[in-house]
Amino acid sequence: MAHNQQVFLDNRPQGEASASNFKLVPGETPPLADGQVLVRHHFLSLDPYMRGRMNDAKSYAVPQPLGQVMQGGTAGEVVESRSPKFQPGDKVVGMGGWQEYSVVNVDQPGALRKVDTTYVPLSHYLGAVGMPGVTAWYGLVKIIEPKAGQTVVVSAASGAVGSAFGALAKARGCRAIGIAGGADKCRYVKEELGFDASIDYKQHKDAVSLSKALKDAAPDGVDGYFENVGGMVMDAVMLRMNAFSRLALCGMIAGYDGQPIPMAYPQLILTNRMKIQGFIVSEHMEVWPEALKELGTLVGTGKLRPRESVVQGIQSAPEAFLGLLKGRNFGKQLVKLG
Amino acid sequence: MAHNQQVFLDNRPQGEASASNFKLVPGETPPLADGQVLVRHHFLSLDPYMRGRMNDAKSYAVPQPLGQVMQGGTAGEVVESRSPKFQPGDKVVGMGGWQEYSVVNVDQPGALRKVDTTYVPLSHYLGAVGMPGVTAWYGLVKIIEPKAGQTVVVSAASGAVGSAFGALAKARGCRAIGIAGGADKCRYVKEELGFDASIDYKQHKDAVSLSKALKDAAPDGVDGYFENVGGMVMDAVMLRMNAFSRLALCGMIAGYDGQPIPMAYPQLILTNRMKIQGFIVSEHMEVWPEALKELGTLVGTGKLRPRESVVQGIQSAPEAFLGLLKGRNFGKQLVKLG
Repeated sequence: MAHNQQVFLDNRPQGEASASNFKLVPGETPPLADGQVLVRHHFLSLDPYMRGRMNDAKSYAVPQPLGQVMQGGTAGEVVESRSPKFQPGDKVVGMGGWQEYSVVNVDQPGALRKVDTTYVPLSHYLGAVGMPGVTAWYGLVKIIEPKAGQTVVVSAASGAVGSAFGALAKARGCRAIGIAGGADKCRYVKEELGFDASIDYKQHKDAVSLSKALKDAAPDGVDGYFENVGGMVMDAVMLRMNAFSRLALCGMIAGYDGQPIPMAYPQLILTNRMKIQGFIVSEHMEVWPEALKELGTLVGTGKLRPRESVVQGIQSAPEAFLGLLKGRNFGKQLVKLG
Repeated sequence: MAHNQQVFLDNRPQGEASASNFKLVPGETPPLADGQVLVRHHFLSLDPYMRGRMNDAKSYAVPQPLGQVMQGGTAGEVVESRSPKFQPGDKVVGMGGWQEYSVVNVDQPGALRKVDTTYVPLSHYLGAVGMPGVTAWYGLVKIIEPKAGQTVVVSAASGAVGSAFGALAKARGCRAIGIAGGADKCRYVKEELGFDASIDYKQHKDAVSLSKALKDAAPDGVDGYFENVGGMVMDAVMLRMNAFSRLALCGMIAGYDGQPIPMAYPQLILTNRMKIQGFIVSEHMEVWPEALKELGTLVGTGKLRPRESVVQGIQSAPEAFLGLLKGRNFGKQLVKLG
C-alpha cells in the first residue's frame, strides 16, 4: 500500500480543453492479488491522442471515462510483486495512467513490459523507443514507403513522433523536411535532429504562403508526408505533393477542439493520384518488435537524440498536457514523479 | 479525302464552361501515308474528365491545346486503309476527337483497337465496355477491394461509370447503393440497374441531411465508396464510412469550375483509418484486358444494360457536353455522327 495521487477526467471539454476538466484525487493503492505487481511510476507520457479521447464523439477509441484515472503510458519500476515474472527493481513500461502508482495484472498480454536501460534511458521508452517512435516508423515504412532520394515531410517535427520520423527517414536515404513552430524548434530540427531543412509555420499566415516556403526546401516536390497536425499545415504540404505521393495521417491536433477543420484542396488527391491513409499504431502490434529494434539502435548509437520536456509532480500533468496541445512543449512531453 | 467538320477548343473557361469556349471548324481529311487509316466516326464520347483538361492548371494530363480538335474517345469504322492490319469495314475504337473523321497511325500502340459488335453494340465500347467501365472496375477491384456482403456506394450512379460499378459490385455479392440526381435517375438506378437502393441527392440541402438518408439505405455503414462528384455528396458519404473503409477518387466534377471545394470532415480519415486513393485509369493499362472481358460478358449476357443519351451531329457536341457537366444526361453521353 502506498499513497497514490491520481488525476481523473472530471468533465468533458466544451471546445478547448482546460485545467477544470481534470481533478486531482488522493488515494491509496489496494493490496495485491496473485498475478499482480505494484509499479511505481517514474514518468507519465503526455500525448496528443489523449485530447481526442476526452471527447465523447464516435472515434477509434472508447472515450476516456469520466470520474476515472486519465489513461496513458507510464515508465517505472516494480516495487512489489505477486508474480514470478517480475521482481522488485525491474524497469517496466505500461499503461498505468496519470497516477503515482499502478497495480497491474501481468498476465494480461501487453500490460507490462520489462525494458533494458543499459543504453536507452527509461524515459525514452515512452518516446523514441515507444509508442511515438513506432508511430513514426509505421507511417514512414508501411504507408509512405519511401525510396532513397525521395523527399519526405513531417509536421510537429520537434516532437516525439517527428524527431523519430526524421532519423528513420535519413537512415533510408531520404531528404527529410520538418515543419515546426518557432525559430528555436526549427533550429533544433535542422541542427540537432539532422533534418535537411526546417520550416517555421508560424511565419506564414496561410497555406499558400507556407507552401511557397516549402517549395524552396523541397524543389523536387514532396513524395511522402506524415501528418500530425491537420488544417493549414496539411493544406500547404498537399499543394507541393508529387504524383503518386503518400500521406500518412496520424494526428489532427488542429481539429480536436470543436468545429472540424476542412481540407482545402481535396482535388489534389485526384490530380496527383495520391494515397491518403489514416492509421493508429496500436492496431499494428505486429510491427512493434521490428520497429522498436531499429529505434533502440538509433537511440543507443546516438543517431537519434530526442529532446524531452519534463515537468515535476503529478499535479503538473494537466497544465503540461494543455501546453502540449498548444505546442508549448519542446520534444517529448513527460511528467516526472518521485 | 472527305469533308470533316471539327470542334476546336477556342478559349479557356473563366469559371463555368460555355458554348463560346468551342468553335466549329470545317475541314478536309488529308491524304493517307503508309501505316495510316481513315476512320469515320459513328460516335463521339463525352466525358467529365474533358472539363478538367479545358483548364490550364497543373493536372495529371497535359491541358487540351487551344486551337486544336477537342480530344476524346471515338467509335467508328475504317473507310480507307494503308495498313495491312485494318480493312475497310472494320469496327474500331480510338481517340479520334470531336470530329467526323480521323487519320490514325495504326502502329502507335493503343491508337486503334478493332472491336466485335456481335454481342456488344458499337457505342458501348465508349461506355460500359470502354474507358468508363474499366474506370469502375479499377476503383472497385483494385482500390475498394470489397468482400461479399460489404456495402459499396457510387455517386453519379446512373452514368457510364456508375452503372458499370453497380453491376460489378453485385457480381461480387456486395450491397450496392447509388446516388443520383432526380427521381427518374434514382428509379432507373434501383429498378433497371439492379442497385439495392438509390438516393436522390437533390432532395437534400446539405451533407448532414444526405448522410441521414444514407444511414437508412446502409444500416451497416459504408465499406467502399467510388467518388465521381466531390463536394457535398462526398462529405455525406464520408460521414457513414466504416473503420478501414476505402474511397476511390476518380472525379470531382463539382470542383471543375473555379474555386476548389473543400472536404468538410478530413478527421474522419483518421478516426476511421480510411484509405483514400486517387487514380486515372489510363495509367493502369495492364488491367484493361481483364476488365474489358468481364464488362463485355456482363453486357453480352444482359446483366448490365447501360442507358445512353445520344445527340445528333458534330455541331451538338458542345451543348451536350455542357449538359453532361450539369447532370442533364441520363446514362452515357454520346454524339452520333453520320
